[in-house]
Amino acid sequence: MRFLIIGGDAAGMSAASRARRNYPDMEITVLEKTRDVSYSACGMPYNIADRAREIDDLVVRQAQVFRQQQGINLLTGHRVDRIEPRTRKVFGCTDRDEMFALEYDKLLIATGGSPIMPELPGFKRPGVMALKSLEDGRRIKAYIKERNVRNVVIIGMGYIALEMCEAFRALSIDIDMVKPGPVFLPWMASELSQTIQAGMVSHGVKIYTGYQIQGIDAAEDKLRVVCENLVLEADMVLVAIGIRPCSELAVSAGIETSVKDSIAVDRGLLTSNEHVYAAGDCADAYHVVTGDKTWIPLALRANRAGWAVADNIIERKNELAGVAGTAVFKVFEFEVARTGLSENEAQRFGYTPQSVTIKTRSRAHAHPGSSQIWVHLVGDKKTGRLLGAQMLGEEGVAHRINAVAVALHGQMTVDQFSQTDLSYAPPFGPVWDPLLTAANQLQKKIR
Amino acid sequence: MRFLIIGGDAAGMSAASRARRNYPDMEITVLEKTRDVSYSACGMPYNIADRAREIDDLVVRQAQVFRQQQGINLLTGHRVDRIEPRTRKVFGCTDRDEMFALEYDKLLIATGGSPIMPELPGFKRPGVMALKSLEDGRRIKAYIKERNVRNVVIIGMGYIALEMCEAFRALSIDIDMVKPGPVFLPWMASELSQTIQAGMVSHGVKIYTGYQIQGIDAAEDKLRVVCENLVLEADMVLVAIGIRPCSELAVSAGIETSVKDSIAVDRGLLTSNEHVYAAGDCADAYHVVTGDKTWIPLALRANRAGWAVADNIIERKNELAGVAGTAVFKVFEFEVARTGLSENEAQRFGYTPQSVTIKTRSRAHAHPGSSQIWVHLVGDKKTGRLLGAQMLGEEGVAHRINAVAVALHGQMTVDQFSQTDLSYAPPFGPVWDPLLTAANQLQKKIR
Repeated sequence: MRFLIIGGDAAGMSAASRARRNYPDMEITVLEKTRDVSYSACGMPYNIADRAREIDDLVVRQAQVFRQQQGINLLTGHRVDRIEPRTRKVFGCTDRDEMFALEYDKLLIATGGSPIMPELPGFKRPGVMALKSLEDGRRIKAYIKERNVRNVVIIGMGYIALEMCEAFRALSIDIDMVKPGPVFLPWMASELSQTIQAGMVSHGVKIYTGYQIQGIDAAEDKLRVVCENLVLEADMVLVAIGIRPCSELAVSAGIETSVKDSIAVDRGLLTSNEHVYAAGDCADAYHVVTGDKTWIPLALRANRAGWAVADNIIERKNELAGVAGTAVFKVFEFEVARTGLSENEAQRFGYTPQSVTIKTRSRAHAHPGSSQIWVHLVGDKKTGRLLGAQMLGEEGVAHRINAVAVALHGQMTVDQFSQTDLSYAPPFGPVWDPLLTAANQLQKKIR
Repeated sequence: MRFLIIGGDAAGMSAASRARRNYPDMEITVLEKTRDVSYSACGMPYNIADRAREIDDLVVRQAQVFRQQQGINLLTGHRVDRIEPRTRKVFGCTDRDEMFALEYDKLLIATGGSPIMPELPGFKRPGVMALKSLEDGRRIKAYIKERNVRNVVIIGMGYIALEMCEAFRALSIDIDMVKPGPVFLPWMASELSQTIQAGMVSHGVKIYTGYQIQGIDAAEDKLRVVCENLVLEADMVLVAIGIRPCSELAVSAGIETSVKDSIAVDRGLLTSNEHVYAAGDCADAYHVVTGDKTWIPLALRANRAGWAVADNIIERKNELAGVAGTAVFKVFEFEVARTGLSENEAQRFGYTPQSVTIKTRSRAHAHPGSSQIWVHLVGDKKTGRLLGAQMLGEEGVAHRINAVAVALHGQMTVDQFSQTDLSYAPPFGPVWDPLLTAANQLQKKIR
């Protein structure tokens, strides 16, 4: 059995390692177009923030460990250009310009996602960067150091844009953020999003929403992000307007795609071709709330899907429940978290959403060190079901969101969730956990 | 409608306030034997630790707020001695030795719990204290100050004993802890319990397990806790060997009791008498894992049960799911949490438990500031169900446990729980949340 994997990041290497544990004699080959495998991509903003650390500190397992200890045929610098499903072959080219062709019995496409770059003038200029691969991180870190970057324009206001704000400020770099959309974090309840915005402004970040970007040019030593009625100058531009699934190889091989052109897979990660699996940021998933297909690129899912492919290549043993879209990020003093559907998403999926937003304290009455904590909870008026949550606070957010995530997996109603026996001690929260206070209030609205 | 409540702590005052909101014209009377109502009992160890704060800082709502703003007939210093169910009357005596008798249509017994005091010589000596009521806290705080307490013996090693260790050390008071049982925290997985024990020892706490206590005497200015082969001298003795439900009033009124003599109630908090409810530490509950009756005195349940009584006194509207026994406490740098069944409890309830204990890091690979975190997970080999969890660590424990608590409410299997989409970001945990790593391992054992 020849198991061939395209892509040596989270999903690909998880699949390779687990396939080796499952099947000691399997012939396992990984083709990775870059020179980097198995690194903590999500750690890059924190690493960039810290001049004393090397970007390579983020490598979890060295390539030679996979090769020598696990007997995985890991080929870095190998870019795949074409899959030929009829003959079960892939064709590609190395970074030394050598052509190669390889046969497979089972194939995993784990090509990940790539940063969206607008088709506008100047986005290929030196100093205009995106952050996705370790090589991107390496390049940004070097650029900041070599050019002594003092100010940056960030285009986009997603998770990575926000995390990078904290990193840049830690390096005393000034920040202008700009995007065409009118709302700072449109997926978020406005009270929470406004609080984050105010927090960022207080750290000196300048936020420009509603500015159409026309291009990037340069004048003297500076890059200039040119918008209608606004020009922002900087030493560096970070483009962080999101990623898209790298599904071109699959598409040209006739494999079906779904949401946002991600590769369509079933619960066992099989694509429309019976010998081809897909996992990680390039593949879709079932949403545990809606039951529909969704595309939410997240690290845990990539790892989990990689494992599942390895469990399924010989005999189908592992079907994945799906994703709730649980995410957390840190921006300055705030922890920000979400899971499930926002009120707008719920509406789009045909629910009759009701929501509450509460603000309470992170610790018990009279306990010192307390800070504010916000919970936004969404439920369905028709069925009573809990649909999603958003949270914000300086402590107690990152893990609290998981109580809701588990409730979403359990298809719980708001009533059932409001009855859960959550932990209490004065240093960690009020007697009624903020999630329960929100659930109690939401229950009144959907009854 | 005359709604009479015996006991003005969490359950009683929650019921009174909610009954007022539900029924603006109801005649609501609360009889409280002490002078204190509505305070954060769980906050006492932290308050005692802080010389600058008054114990009365823990009062959440003043008695006059209940009386004047809510129109609740709140009678403090009113001890009830007898319930006469046939005539629906209660009889009692005030702290000014005035007898009283009151009629009710519906009665709530919310008499709470009281600290267990061994029937041994010397436990009534001055300086031998327990900590349950605000008056206890007041007395301990005053005693420490007036007698300039320098060392203390704590009898017992439960939650309160452990929380008070941190409080006493914050006041530079030396501590000997002693108990008859041979194991430090017998309900806890041994690796976790040993880690806590080592942590406490490193803070200078001396721990004596397996010493039968014979009594307390005094010599010169010191109290002496006399055990076989051991005498511990101290300025003060804290007795913290647990509490028992205050169910005597109910028992003598012919009302049924259950586990550990707690008052038996149904899911609507009704006792065996159709006009009498019970809520709080005096009453039992259904366990969400076993479905059987249990008695786990915890603050959230008391509040929730008080509310449910107020919802049910005229028309039955609120049935409670039950408790998972979720608890968290802080002891020095550690957060300690549990929910559901321990392996021993699971065995007693007829399950075929399997467990794993894992030790991992509280933050992602290469993220600074990481500490160790332990997860102990229990599942049933026969049914695959998740039964309980215990956690220990310096961060990320108090709220993480709630993911398991919600899974227990949802009757999830270990497999289902292992598939949940939990949050990930490098400052808050590894890609695979420690709970998921434990669940993945446990799954292999119970498959």
